[in-house]
Amino acid sequence: MSGTRPDTADIRRLDAEDPLRPFRDRFQLPSGVIYLDGNSLGALPRATPGRIAQVVGAEWGEGLIRSWNAAGWIEAPARVGAKIARLIGAGAHEVTVADSTSVNLFKLLAAAMAARPDRDVILTEAGGFPTDLYIAQGLAAFAPHLQVRAVPREAVAAALGADTGVLLLTHVHYKTGAAYDLAALTRAAQAQGALMLWDLSHSTGAVAVDLEAAGADLAVGCGYKYLNGGPGAPAFLYVAERHQARLRSPLSGWMGHAAPFEFGDDYRPAGGLARFLCGTPPMLSVAALEVGVELMLEADLTAVFAKSQGLCSLFIERVETLCGAFGLGLVTPRDPAGRGAHVSFSHPQAHAVMQALIARGVIGDFRAPDILRFGFPALYVRHQDVADAADALYEVLASEVWRDEAFQLRAAVT
Amino acid sequence: MSGTRPDTADIRRLDAEDPLRPFRDRFQLPSGVIYLDGNSLGALPRATPGRIAQVVGAEWGEGLIRSWNAAGWIEAPARVGAKIARLIGAGAHEVTVADSTSVNLFKLLAAAMAARPDRDVILTEAGGFPTDLYIAQGLAAFAPHLQVRAVPREAVAAALGADTGVLLLTHVHYKTGAAYDLAALTRAAQAQGALMLWDLSHSTGAVAVDLEAAGADLAVGCGYKYLNGGPGAPAFLYVAERHQARLRSPLSGWMGHAAPFEFGDDYRPAGGLARFLCGTPPMLSVAALEVGVELMLEADLTAVFAKSQGLCSLFIERVETLCGAFGLGLVTPRDPAGRGAHVSFSHPQAHAVMQALIARGVIGDFRAPDILRFGFPALYVRHQDVADAADALYEVLASEVWRDEAFQLRAAVT
Repeated sequence: MSGTRPDTADIRRLDAEDPLRPFRDRFQLPSGVIYLDGNSLGALPRATPGRIAQVVGAEWGEGLIRSWNAAGWIEAPARVGAKIARLIGAGAHEVTVADSTSVNLFKLLAAAMAARPDRDVILTEAGGFPTDLYIAQGLAAFAPHLQVRAVPREAVAAALGADTGVLLLTHVHYKTGAAYDLAALTRAAQAQGALMLWDLSHSTGAVAVDLEAAGADLAVGCGYKYLNGGPGAPAFLYVAERHQARLRSPLSGWMGHAAPFEFGDDYRPAGGLARFLCGTPPMLSVAALEVGVELMLEADLTAVFAKSQGLCSLFIERVETLCGAFGLGLVTPRDPAGRGAHVSFSHPQAHAVMQALIARGVIGDFRAPDILRFGFPALYVRHQDVADAADALYEVLASEVWRDEAFQLRAAVT
Repeated sequence: MSGTRPDTADIRRLDAEDPLRPFRDRFQLPSGVIYLDGNSLGALPRATPGRIAQVVGAEWGEGLIRSWNAAGWIEAPARVGAKIARLIGAGAHEVTVADSTSVNLFKLLAAAMAARPDRDVILTEAGGFPTDLYIAQGLAAFAPHLQVRAVPREAVAAALGADTGVLLLTHVHYKTGAAYDLAALTRAAQAQGALMLWDLSHSTGAVAVDLEAAGADLAVGCGYKYLNGGPGAPAFLYVAERHQARLRSPLSGWMGHAAPFEFGDDYRPAGGLARFLCGTPPMLSVAALEVGVELMLEADLTAVFAKSQGLCSLFIERVETLCGAFGLGLVTPRDPAGRGAHVSFSHPQAHAVMQALIARGVIGDFRAPDILRFGFPALYVRHQDVADAADALYEVLASEVWRDEAFQLRAAVT
């Protein structure tokens, strides 16, 4: 297809031949909507409402306190973690579900810096995922012997040094979609004696991640984007087995105790990854996450990641072909190997353009100051959706909707 | 009733005259069960399954990302916090919902100690709520200039000194049910220049708490006990308005940013209590919590707290009358003003006794090494349940069930 606009027959063929085609029906999607914001909040699996009704009505309502054992609630963080592990090339005992991405970042960052007392720098990317930066800053404000060094993306590797305790990076950039070479950066950090902490929020379920092959140290990730775990779904954390015994979370809550039901006075961390649990997990949200993860595990992951790459390429190609005259700038890398599963374009009127797209039922999102962002989760986005979204973008841009007074008025009051 | 065993007619009359009687039907309770463990996991409000189905199917499934605004998700922590505030005598803008009790303890404890750089002691109660102790220990392990001093309950006030940064106490003891004088201890801590941090996990919705009258500084509490918010429901935190601007959470995640959707590189804490938010809240669990809190707010709180006191007194009296010969020791204060809404007895065979009670459908819980614990949430426990539970306890003790070989065998395999 390269260089020419795929015609309607091509699009139909791509969908007809899509091995993941049956998965779309496993989601409840609103009619009249092309949903390209699954990179921010994934869609609802059809199995989720029934599972949640069961957790609420039977497990909580009838089982009550007994369900901590009888319904497997107590093992849920490790059980769901082991399932997520299969999506990111980790061992079953190296991933657990807990808290939010931000809280997990704090735990691992603090634990890693405490394990490197001779090093005082948390190195990260300027303009990276805000919560990565904020959590590092909050930690350094509380522990003033630590400092955060945020450098431009292209300067990260060179900024590693003997004072770097942790290199903290988001694998796939939340805004541009650019992906780091996970294995190469991990090696670079380790070569300087630093620990590598990956934020996989925008890559888990979106692109191939192989933590074991990369010799990874630490990672966190999000449950409510490509994992379709629901709004505010709990996050996960990964600690390579070789690090588990020596790292200690400062958030040493009772669920991370070696014997939480002894109710002793002194904290003793659990032997394995459970030491990184803190308080009681929100079971309704954990249950919804488990449904989302199980659904993705039914799919051929190679096909999932290849399809998202193809959808991104198709969108870029079609938008550039249709809309080349309208001042869009491609922000996302053109090379599929160098990006995630979302695509961003800059445009001076990006905010108004996205409002107009959403009004037409094409839901992407706007990221300040001038970014239009579109996500392409493979399980429920069709090639036809991509083509239709590009067409809608063309119509919005061609109509210069932001010059329309009625549009401006609506935008001002909504 | 004091001193004499209330007869069946008395019990019937108490239930018939109970102004909270209609509330029991607002809960879904399993048949054949007397549930006296609502102090550990509250029961299921009948309104919850429908509300959760709406959040999942309509707000998530149909609304998708738009529901952060359209369905009020983004305001949920403050909105539900303002409702909880009414249960604990706090201002609407002094309570927010976030994370777990343990994580919130860490935030407030770290923030408070950082605001008191000339003081290095976190004072708390030996044998107190384990996660209070563990979180304080974890903080001190990470910030070694801090130390945790855990002293016996009766020595707490005298141990306050010029080095005390924070006095951390659980208002109602998780095991014994003994309640501190919240106002008196707050004054004592403040008189020594310390900040008072209350863990209200076992008192919110159980006993009258008036933080404003007490001139309180800081508090946290649990959503899944007397608030009936569901397994692992998010917790809440309270920061008196006068402290909000100067305290900073080390867990400075994006939801606590002054402008979270600017996605800037530098953390700026939100102006009010929102600065104590961290990551994205688990919306399904937040929604369930809101239902539980709203249900309690429908009730006359004075009646709620008086009824729980009465149920506790009735249980103590009836158990002591029936079971006086069987080696039970009352652990909970006899004075209603000095306790919460649960009652504990010690017994050398406590574990076996509780197993036998649960097998008969009377669900309380066991706390090591020898405690039988029974909770009396006013909204769904009847006086008849209390009488029947005491009778069941009598039968279990009189039969010396732990000597029965078949029971031992069952206990060994379950």
